[in-house]
Amino acid sequence: MTDPNVMTLDEIEDLAFRALTQAGTSATNARPLAKATAATEANGIASHGLAYIPTYCEHVRCGKVDGQAAPSVSRPAPSVITVDASTGFAHPAIELGFKELIPLAQAQGVAALAIHNSYNCGVLGYHTGQLAAAGLLGIGFTNAPASIAPVGGRRPAVGTNPFSLAAPDGDGAAAVLIDQSASVIAKSEIMKHARENLPIPPEWALDPDGQPTTNAAIALKGSMAPSGGYKGVGVALMVEIMAAAMTGATLGINASPFSGTKGGPPKTGQFFLALNPALTSGGLFNERLTSLVEEMRDQPGARLPGDGRRAARRRAERKGVNVNPTALEKINAWLAS
Amino acid sequence: MTDPNVMTLDEIEDLAFRALTQAGTSATNARPLAKATAATEANGIASHGLAYIPTYCEHVRCGKVDGQAAPSVSRPAPSVITVDASTGFAHPAIELGFKELIPLAQAQGVAALAIHNSYNCGVLGYHTGQLAAAGLLGIGFTNAPASIAPVGGRRPAVGTNPFSLAAPDGDGAAAVLIDQSASVIAKSEIMKHARENLPIPPEWALDPDGQPTTNAAIALKGSMAPSGGYKGVGVALMVEIMAAAMTGATLGINASPFSGTKGGPPKTGQFFLALNPALTSGGLFNERLTSLVEEMRDQPGARLPGDGRRAARRRAERKGVNVNPTALEKINAWLAS
Repeated sequence: MTDPNVMTLDEIEDLAFRALTQAGTSATNARPLAKATAATEANGIASHGLAYIPTYCEHVRCGKVDGQAAPSVSRPAPSVITVDASTGFAHPAIELGFKELIPLAQAQGVAALAIHNSYNCGVLGYHTGQLAAAGLLGIGFTNAPASIAPVGGRRPAVGTNPFSLAAPDGDGAAAVLIDQSASVIAKSEIMKHARENLPIPPEWALDPDGQPTTNAAIALKGSMAPSGGYKGVGVALMVEIMAAAMTGATLGINASPFSGTKGGPPKTGQFFLALNPALTSGGLFNERLTSLVEEMRDQPGARLPGDGRRAARRRAERKGVNVNPTALEKINAWLAS
Repeated sequence: MTDPNVMTLDEIEDLAFRALTQAGTSATNARPLAKATAATEANGIASHGLAYIPTYCEHVRCGKVDGQAAPSVSRPAPSVITVDASTGFAHPAIELGFKELIPLAQAQGVAALAIHNSYNCGVLGYHTGQLAAAGLLGIGFTNAPASIAPVGGRRPAVGTNPFSLAAPDGDGAAAVLIDQSASVIAKSEIMKHARENLPIPPEWALDPDGQPTTNAAIALKGSMAPSGGYKGVGVALMVEIMAAAMTGATLGINASPFSGTKGGPPKTGQFFLALNPALTSGGLFNERLTSLVEEMRDQPGARLPGDGRRAARRRAERKGVNVNPTALEKINAWLAS
């Protein structure tokens, strides 16, 4: 007897692809998103894997994202690539940009990719990891609807805005993959607690008066607590400047929500930097990174950013992924509709 | 009656310059450091202003830094500049690099500057602010001797490692200047408490077993608490990878201390990215940044990173700086010696 909830990575990609195309996404746009969905499940991040497919399908149907969009690429300067995602999915826009970014960064030493008119890009580290796989150091920023207030303020001004850095191992993967948001906790966790009428820890969020709250519903009307206080606001602001101001995308204060069907396309942005480590370090990068990683790993119980995803991926490649049955049911219902 | 502790910015620069040159620093190397000292005092950051001059002088004398060093610049790729600081001060190495970095980033859209064989660069945001003054978005990283342990570990592996982002206001200054370390508190605060035999708050540092401690002396044998837990470790690691691995500089685990006279030159590194916002944003950067800043400022009591420094600077330009009398005494004693 095989467990129907255990799927291979190919099966996950195929399921995501079928649902997305049935919803009206072009095959060209669905493929990178389906691949990322399988990789995300493999990395053990179920919240951003198949669980997102019903939302993506719904967003194609309601016009929050244009499933048929054709992203277009420009090179406004020798080391800069811009992509207009044309209110389509972020994944095909990033894939298109990376095709030019990777050889450009290898030759120039550093190159930048600025994407606007985009959408939620899923797990940011999935994308920077592609740069590391190509032997480059990748840095990424992506903005989201505003949910964190400025220091001393109460009204959300910047999103939970993650950044990511992927350092190449020189062998087709990332030796270190940092991928972290600017808030104490993901907003989806607070939404989940609100749906289930459960209290939240007081350090997660603030009420509309800027005071800590344990009421998830009130927290959603207030703001998310930044990680490390004002330093979390600093990270969120850095990301907002890079992903929105530096790309000409929509600021989090003006963006429509990533959830629900209202408000049209969010038109948020992504910014990526790709660097050639051998050129900047005089050939010393691999030795330095290896020493740093070894020093950290050499401590009992210590772990590095990216270790959890790598372990999950190895398990998934051997044994498949035990996917969320609710997500599976929803996708199958969508396919049958 | 004039207060001898109130000095103009020119007087501060002159005093720093005289002390540095008397200690054996060349005029070429002392000038950028003296200028930065005056700007740092103007920005209200007394801990990194004149208070550092006696240490700098001592380090020139003991050979921890080569006051006569001639930094050398190379361009290993079209968009990459590297500087070998030759175990001299970081400031002249950065100034030399910026002379090439600024026009290069303006033309290429993005350019990188990697510095190795360097020294403590003082206030990182002083340097990124120079890039913003030139109309560029500047990002900076600098590493320091290891003091933060990895997640799950107990032994320091990365420094309190700050990053900085300066966003240009298009009018010769920074509209936003983020400059923050990866730890809850500066290590110098813990050293000060240890000297004065004062307890520290339990959230500042960890003992050698990785447990919170209120004993400053024990904290100095343990590790610094990262800001926001594992996310602070992520920031410190990002900075270590950029400032040391990407430059070929010395890792924090192998660097000699920034304080004291032992261990020779620390040979740490700095990494800067400079970007042309008009080119990456299709000309929309100024409008986006202005909207973001206005939204944040429009809230009663809210403040932006860099606001405190700007207010201090305006005051200093009008009224001079009330400098730390102890620092002044030490410098005058040095000059008279």
